[in-house]
Amino acid sequence: MNLPDTTDVHPAWLPPEAFRAIGSRRVRVCGDDPLVETVRREVVEACASYGGCLGGEDGGPVDLVLALTTHGPAAGSSFGPEAAECSGTLGAEGFLVARRRGVTLVLADAGAGLLHGLFHLVRLGEGAFGADRPAECHRPAMGRRMLDHWDNVAVHPVMGQVERGYSGGSLFWEDGALRADLTRVRAYGRLLAACGVNAIAVNNVNVHATEALLLTDRLGEVAALAEQVRPYGIRVYLSVNFASPMVLGGLPTADPLDERVRQWWSATTREVYQTIPDFGGYVVKADSEGQPGPFAYQRTHADGANVLAEALAPFGGVVYWRAFVYNHRQDWRDRSTDRARAAFDHFTPLDGQFHDNVILQVKYGPIDFQPREPLSPVIAAMPATRVGMELQVTQEYTGHQLHVCYLAPLWSEVLGFRYWGPDGPAAAALIEGGGLVGVSNAGDDPFWTGHPLAQANLYAFGRLAWAPHLAPGTILDEWIDLTFQPATTGDPDLLRQTLHAMMDSSWQTYERYTAPLGVGFMVRPGHHYGPDVDGYEYTSWGTYHFADRDGVGVDRSQATGTGFTGQYPAFWAQRYESLAECPDEVLLFFHHVPYDHVLRSGTTVIQHIYDTHFTGARQAADLRELWGRIDAAQLVDPRLFARVAERLGEQVRCAEEWRDQVNAYFFRKSGVPDALGRRIY
Amino acid sequence: MNLPDTTDVHPAWLPPEAFRAIGSRRVRVCGDDPLVETVRREVVEACASYGGCLGGEDGGPVDLVLALTTHGPAAGSSFGPEAAECSGTLGAEGFLVARRRGVTLVLADAGAGLLHGLFHLVRLGEGAFGADRPAECHRPAMGRRMLDHWDNVAVHPVMGQVERGYSGGSLFWEDGALRADLTRVRAYGRLLAACGVNAIAVNNVNVHATEALLLTDRLGEVAALAEQVRPYGIRVYLSVNFASPMVLGGLPTADPLDERVRQWWSATTREVYQTIPDFGGYVVKADSEGQPGPFAYQRTHADGANVLAEALAPFGGVVYWRAFVYNHRQDWRDRSTDRARAAFDHFTPLDGQFHDNVILQVKYGPIDFQPREPLSPVIAAMPATRVGMELQVTQEYTGHQLHVCYLAPLWSEVLGFRYWGPDGPAAAALIEGGGLVGVSNAGDDPFWTGHPLAQANLYAFGRLAWAPHLAPGTILDEWIDLTFQPATTGDPDLLRQTLHAMMDSSWQTYERYTAPLGVGFMVRPGHHYGPDVDGYEYTSWGTYHFADRDGVGVDRSQATGTGFTGQYPAFWAQRYESLAECPDEVLLFFHHVPYDHVLRSGTTVIQHIYDTHFTGARQAADLRELWGRIDAAQLVDPRLFARVAERLGEQVRCAEEWRDQVNAYFFRKSGVPDALGRRIY
Repeated sequence: MNLPDTTDVHPAWLPPEAFRAIGSRRVRVCGDDPLVETVRREVVEACASYGGCLGGEDGGPVDLVLALTTHGPAAGSSFGPEAAECSGTLGAEGFLVARRRGVTLVLADAGAGLLHGLFHLVRLGEGAFGADRPAECHRPAMGRRMLDHWDNVAVHPVMGQVERGYSGGSLFWEDGALRADLTRVRAYGRLLAACGVNAIAVNNVNVHATEALLLTDRLGEVAALAEQVRPYGIRVYLSVNFASPMVLGGLPTADPLDERVRQWWSATTREVYQTIPDFGGYVVKADSEGQPGPFAYQRTHADGANVLAEALAPFGGVVYWRAFVYNHRQDWRDRSTDRARAAFDHFTPLDGQFHDNVILQVKYGPIDFQPREPLSPVIAAMPATRVGMELQVTQEYTGHQLHVCYLAPLWSEVLGFRYWGPDGPAAAALIEGGGLVGVSNAGDDPFWTGHPLAQANLYAFGRLAWAPHLAPGTILDEWIDLTFQPATTGDPDLLRQTLHAMMDSSWQTYERYTAPLGVGFMVRPGHHYGPDVDGYEYTSWGTYHFADRDGVGVDRSQATGTGFTGQYPAFWAQRYESLAECPDEVLLFFHHVPYDHVLRSGTTVIQHIYDTHFTGARQAADLRELWGRIDAAQLVDPRLFARVAERLGEQVRCAEEWRDQVNAYFFRKSGVPDALGRRIY
Repeated sequence: MNLPDTTDVHPAWLPPEAFRAIGSRRVRVCGDDPLVETVRREVVEACASYGGCLGGEDGGPVDLVLALTTHGPAAGSSFGPEAAECSGTLGAEGFLVARRRGVTLVLADAGAGLLHGLFHLVRLGEGAFGADRPAECHRPAMGRRMLDHWDNVAVHPVMGQVERGYSGGSLFWEDGALRADLTRVRAYGRLLAACGVNAIAVNNVNVHATEALLLTDRLGEVAALAEQVRPYGIRVYLSVNFASPMVLGGLPTADPLDERVRQWWSATTREVYQTIPDFGGYVVKADSEGQPGPFAYQRTHADGANVLAEALAPFGGVVYWRAFVYNHRQDWRDRSTDRARAAFDHFTPLDGQFHDNVILQVKYGPIDFQPREPLSPVIAAMPATRVGMELQVTQEYTGHQLHVCYLAPLWSEVLGFRYWGPDGPAAAALIEGGGLVGVSNAGDDPFWTGHPLAQANLYAFGRLAWAPHLAPGTILDEWIDLTFQPATTGDPDLLRQTLHAMMDSSWQTYERYTAPLGVGFMVRPGHHYGPDVDGYEYTSWGTYHFADRDGVGVDRSQATGTGFTGQYPAFWAQRYESLAECPDEVLLFFHHVPYDHVLRSGTTVIQHIYDTHFTGARQAADLRELWGRIDAAQLVDPRLFARVAERLGEQVRCAEEWRDQVNAYFFRKSGVPDALGRRIY
């Protein structure tokens, strides 16, 4: 097996040049695990390009040793103490890296760890071969770092090949079948391993008729995908239909407490593992937006999840059970129902009832991946349950990969949120058992992600799942260094500075020109791109802003509203409840206020709306301006330049559209003129 | 050839029983035109069912004579004077009907007229065979009575098989090909002939790639359709792509003044007539919503239409050239552009420049088939042009054939509109040369029209095109009598009264619960069903209501607005311009007024909005109540009953949705409470 050949596909953060430092060294790789073979292959390939060599284990001179601790002290003889100290403590994926007397050492307890260590060296580049460095141990903060692919096998009449996909077709499926050429799947697995991801779910959580068959008749296709990504330490998961015992098994019921159903899941899962021994497990969207679930049998979601968990347990598999359960047929006239409350109300009574190998997969916010939401209170409310957090890498609500929107700052804020106040743990600590799940933004687009700069989001997702404390700017630097290897001509600092100037605060820019103050959902219904302030206001989706001539926002207080604030631990329950203490950025998520309400920032709500929209649109225009400098300096590939430039044009247009629609809407409603007299239509 | 067998398809207004009166008589049919053969076949079929007989021409006793005037006096020997008087004055489609001394006579100059006379007798039923009746001459008010079918050959990814179709698939096309079984096309032709239609255009005015080929490679399919409807006196038209010389002919241009283009149209059209000698002509949507047109070559629409007209002229064909030309990419921020002005601004400067065989096809209102619009000023502004009027039988904006909405009252009002005031001619007189065109509401649904009661719209369209002065209630009676032949049990008057109670004012009911006071376009974007008050407010479609906290409506006055009122003759220009004189029902089409503006009716605009929406939704509920009586009495086929009942449920739900959304929207904007304190959300 050679490394994937993906001519005409952008190499993302693994261009050949990223391996120059390693490939120009004398390297020894010790160990015989299959993933060690992957490491060896990577080294061979790199050395072939850059003049280094892969030495035998004969004790000759080396610059770099990559070795399993199980391989014995010979591997890194001069590192005896560290090796001895670390051995057995690194876990399956951790690694140690050190440099002493001109030799760099990577040690790991297992092949996956060695592979992560290799990619760590790739990130360090020449830095890994400079001065001596003391031993550092690296272990992932979360064992589970998964990407969900909302990919359909058969093209869905409304949602297409990839639901909420903005990067061309699926990497896995095409027109109803597995792709004939899986080269890019392998390349994708390699990219994911290099940023820290170790699991993928290969089909949409909305499991339609064709996709349901992947569990049985078409399992071979899943096995083919697993084969591609296995060398990179990535396990494959499958989204399954809760009604599979009926749909596929011909049973008259899918009742999780029915013995036949239990046996069907057990037998079916056994066959899955016979075909794919390292299969990861199932992902289930049940009783959600029309998908079947345990409610049909008056069973709880714990009953539902546990029947799958029992079937998976003998093989070490897990079930990711999504907490995204709410009434999507709400009557907009009904003010007593609050979608934000739904997951908490459904799931917290079940805390402690889920089996150990169930992970409750909770979207980071209580609604649905808006650019700004408070954190879901569910994550802090189920101490006896393994909770995982779901993020959206694909830019459904953040500009469809037509807009620059670097999401690491959002995720970083989310992962650092402290439910019990400054002295309590960060959210990242609460999800160590369940891990992080992202909805992938990758597709068969030559740049993988539609917008080339959206590659940074995919990269950052993996890095934050591995190390949630990493600063977004640091991750961006890593990504820039890997992706845009210094050109022989031109000023590399200009590129770095420009990308930071464009991306560091691009999420805040996007937030400024879209829905204000955390109120969310002012997007066009259906496709969720561009503004439509009232688009969801009179629908069944539970996403309302209640703007009238006097004010705007959702009263979720306990005193006078839906009581949602009471789902938080006291520290935040009290702050969110208080109009004076509630953070500005989520004010309209929690309160309905008059337009002249003065924010903590000192400005009124209506003037804040005008100000942020004028500023946000101007900042979008600035992005285009900044990118122009890159062209002048010819610092990037012309195709990449053109792709970004084209999308920036659309971003500027769309940001102006947001600005003018939102401002016009609120001016027409409020009648309050802009204090600065700017043009409102 | 036998009459079409359409088992399991509802017979609409031609159930076998409708022929009982004729079929139980001794009938003589005289003449040898092909359409006389159709008459003869109808009579034979009727007599086979009801015991009558088709007599020879041997002078034996008869009850009914159907004869061509050209057949000589022998045919109706006892009617000599009338026959002699009428001969040669009836035209191709007119007929004379009389009864004297126990014999009923229908005379016509041509076969088509005799066929229309036959269907006239069908409408009269036993009434045609009672007391003597003096001779009556019937001639169509308009020679051209066409139905356009927005049917796609290949299923369009967004618009489906039938654009704006709500009656299943196309009668003509299925999944990219002509239907294998054209039985229903023949039956459809028969139904159309029976209500007076004499032309159909068989494909969508938006001519996509597959459909463009109908003009050349796939002309045989059009010929096959023509063959089916020819026996009923119906000619077939084709919607063509203005860029056909490029798309089909491989020319580098479609410039109408280019000699190669001219020759291509000429040669192509000659071949069309070689295949379909009675081909009607072309329908063209040019420079409209993305379709190609003469603007690309800096040519006028007269240039564009005339090149086709020249090609058609030698064969007696005509081109229907649609006046639906406007900027569909308008910036909503641009208040200086008014879509209502567009057709007038584009076309009136060209008056007198179109060839005789060009018909300018003008939608009845200046925007797009809203339930209430003022009439298009174009119809009165082009005296030197043949103008046809386009109506929408398919209920795109009037409830998708899920709502009962009998449209004859709307059309009757439209056709009776007098542009120059009470002493001037009615609109119907202005379009005698161009005729009436309707967008068909028929499809392969077993009831033809989705909603069984929507059959009445198809019927009424034909009848009004033939006789615009007919009262909508009279047409409805005809339709009821034909469609629901008296059951042997039950009270026939109950059915008639119920249907009148449901349908006579159903258009006004629909208007009440939808967009108020002629402002239009508060439908969900794209599919145009159900309410979305701001759905089009910030889009490029030129359809805005400009509601703010103070008022609503579009200022189209000359004094302060877009000047659209100035496109009307003085009588209406002055009335529409005046806030005091403008009719309430179109007030918001012409003026932006404060919510407390007092209407001519005496109520304020805001209270009018509340009142009509509460009333309209209640009236929708009344419809369901009324229909329940029919069930109790078992007066109609149970399947038909169930279909109507199911749709009434949806109508009631949707009307309440309209009521609550529109009322909530305007309450939130205006802050004015309902005077009657009813529930607004």
